[in-house]
Amino acid sequence: MTDPNRRDKFNLPEGVIYLDGNSLGPLPSHVPQRLANATNEAWGRHLIKAWNEDDWIGLPGRIGDRIARMIGAPKGTVRACDSTSINLYKLLSAAIEKSGKKGIVLSDTGNFPTDLYVAQGLVASEPNISLKLVDPEDIEDAITPDVCVVMLTQVDYRTGRRHNMERITNLSHEAGALILWDLAHSAGALDVDLEGVGADFAVGCGYKYLNGGPGAPAFLYVAEQHHDTMSDVAGWFGHAEPFAFETEFRAASGIDRFTVGTPPVLSMVALDGALDLFDDVKRADVAQRSTALTQLFIDEISVFADAYDLVLATPIETKNRGSHVSWHHPNAYPVMQALISLGVIGDMRAPDYLRFGFAPLYNTDDEVRRAAAILREVLETGSWDQPQFHARKAVT
Amino acid sequence: MTDPNRRDKFNLPEGVIYLDGNSLGPLPSHVPQRLANATNEAWGRHLIKAWNEDDWIGLPGRIGDRIARMIGAPKGTVRACDSTSINLYKLLSAAIEKSGKKGIVLSDTGNFPTDLYVAQGLVASEPNISLKLVDPEDIEDAITPDVCVVMLTQVDYRTGRRHNMERITNLSHEAGALILWDLAHSAGALDVDLEGVGADFAVGCGYKYLNGGPGAPAFLYVAEQHHDTMSDVAGWFGHAEPFAFETEFRAASGIDRFTVGTPPVLSMVALDGALDLFDDVKRADVAQRSTALTQLFIDEISVFADAYDLVLATPIETKNRGSHVSWHHPNAYPVMQALISLGVIGDMRAPDYLRFGFAPLYNTDDEVRRAAAILREVLETGSWDQPQFHARKAVT
Repeated sequence: MTDPNRRDKFNLPEGVIYLDGNSLGPLPSHVPQRLANATNEAWGRHLIKAWNEDDWIGLPGRIGDRIARMIGAPKGTVRACDSTSINLYKLLSAAIEKSGKKGIVLSDTGNFPTDLYVAQGLVASEPNISLKLVDPEDIEDAITPDVCVVMLTQVDYRTGRRHNMERITNLSHEAGALILWDLAHSAGALDVDLEGVGADFAVGCGYKYLNGGPGAPAFLYVAEQHHDTMSDVAGWFGHAEPFAFETEFRAASGIDRFTVGTPPVLSMVALDGALDLFDDVKRADVAQRSTALTQLFIDEISVFADAYDLVLATPIETKNRGSHVSWHHPNAYPVMQALISLGVIGDMRAPDYLRFGFAPLYNTDDEVRRAAAILREVLETGSWDQPQFHARKAVT
Repeated sequence: MTDPNRRDKFNLPEGVIYLDGNSLGPLPSHVPQRLANATNEAWGRHLIKAWNEDDWIGLPGRIGDRIARMIGAPKGTVRACDSTSINLYKLLSAAIEKSGKKGIVLSDTGNFPTDLYVAQGLVASEPNISLKLVDPEDIEDAITPDVCVVMLTQVDYRTGRRHNMERITNLSHEAGALILWDLAHSAGALDVDLEGVGADFAVGCGYKYLNGGPGAPAFLYVAEQHHDTMSDVAGWFGHAEPFAFETEFRAASGIDRFTVGTPPVLSMVALDGALDLFDDVKRADVAQRSTALTQLFIDEISVFADAYDLVLATPIETKNRGSHVSWHHPNAYPVMQALISLGVIGDMRAPDYLRFGFAPLYNTDDEVRRAAAILREVLETGSWDQPQFHARKAVT
């Protein structure tokens, strides 16, 4: 194994232990210059010609192929575009179409809410499709022949529980269903192998472990055998010849048909830059470090967890967890605010989760030990129980 | 009238006459610094806290309210989000829903192709809705009682022909239809008054006359009386309480319900910065200068048009045209390439349009005269007929 740590390539503020890269990855040091070039040179000087000269037009494909490496997808099956929610809408509509527009879309209550909202909105206009939610631990049993699409997020955003992607993909196919994976908390941290497990569709997020910047464009994956299908959302970037300006939509022949509108170039450039840091990294190495970091954190906290009402919410078996670790605590909100005030940035998720994300590219064992020690101190001294730590913020 | 020209606030390359601001507005000089702050300070130092501390969470609304001023929309009826295509999909689905999901969606062949592709994709999954296209000049007669939604772009991207927004909106309502306007070539250049004409829905583009940067986030407008409706695309940013992470979608009470996923913050910040230049500008003044610039260009070219096979494609009556002027020419492609090589940046649109956009915020009368003179010279000398001007580029 080669350690994928390249902490020196990130701008991390002094004194901060950043354990929230699963919400927003930190700034890669070279990205500001990349963005300044795209702004001052390409936009400012090349103007409209930059679509050719700076290959803005190729960004969704170039970025898509770079992300593909990190999720076990062949070239030409991934594109960077839109938000995760929009991509989910597109691919769910394509999966429903391909499956004959009849049956159950199955998901679980551990899915990220926006995924469920997207499904609810889409299914509302499909007379012969219904949405069924079960608890995450019941998902495998719920994959019955009346299911047409299984739509799951691999890693639970609260607990860090990881689904068995290979087994659930196989069960779906055996039941005659298609599967759509959300890799929001997986891409850039776990050893995802979409082609290996035979996944049909996937989406994911550019701004978490891929460090693409706030609200970075998301990505979508469509297995090659589904490149003949189409989403409900057609737009000019998905046309076979966008600049022929034809009146009738003619889908591009491959994955490009799933792109829609003009991409937000500046945000795309930041994401493209951030991906440089993955170029010489192996998925397996990232995954191994992820496991080591989360295990060390669990071990360090376990020593004092019982004494301070911390209950591990994350599965203890390594194969069953993602790259973040969550603990239930009755005062999760003020405890997290106190941690943040001491430079340990994690986040709190309703109702009572203290959540800590571990990114193989910049988090270190030493940080994990210090974060655990600071948490212990906060709980031991009760320093979290001060008015300023109870005050709610708009976004938490 | 106050001249809205503030050319000194833009980074325009020396020696360039930029007449393509209707494809991509130029770089406002202060935007690189704004973007550097958002990157180095907000993302780099505040990290996840920037959603509160730098009010990233408020960007769609803040930007929306700033754009609202320029299109005659009340506060709280416009949001910046997604691409124009995606917003069109959302609002067309909402309009179809509100109109009872039965009847004809009417548009014209002068609409921008992506608008037609979006409608085609959406209508394909609506059993009782059909899409009807007529020629732009026949649109008013085609608004019959079987039409449920009229969907038009105000200004034709090729010819610059402008629809009468007030009359067509009235005709639509009289026929019992809802109307959805695309303001891509209008916002920031024309005196659009959405509330005044009683428009139901509108979308538009951030990267043209609003100068928000390449692929800048787009915007959507929903009249207050339709804030009880919902698009097919539900996502967490449109939830009443996104951070309550509820399993069921509960739409936010106002315009926010039409936002979906996490916005691309860096691209949003550039657009927000660009809008500073509109803060002390009146819509009516912008529109008056637009008319003056296009008229001057038409007058200057008309002197020699016949001699060199230029045929005006744009309506000659001021109220019937937008802020760009197009001429048919049998060799439009190489002629435009020759112009670009001489620093006059317009663009060519298939099959034979030479297109020139005029932006009241930075184009001057002197530029208009010089551009006309250079076009005359290119045609007079035949300098366009060289191999390098015939070579096609990927994006034109």
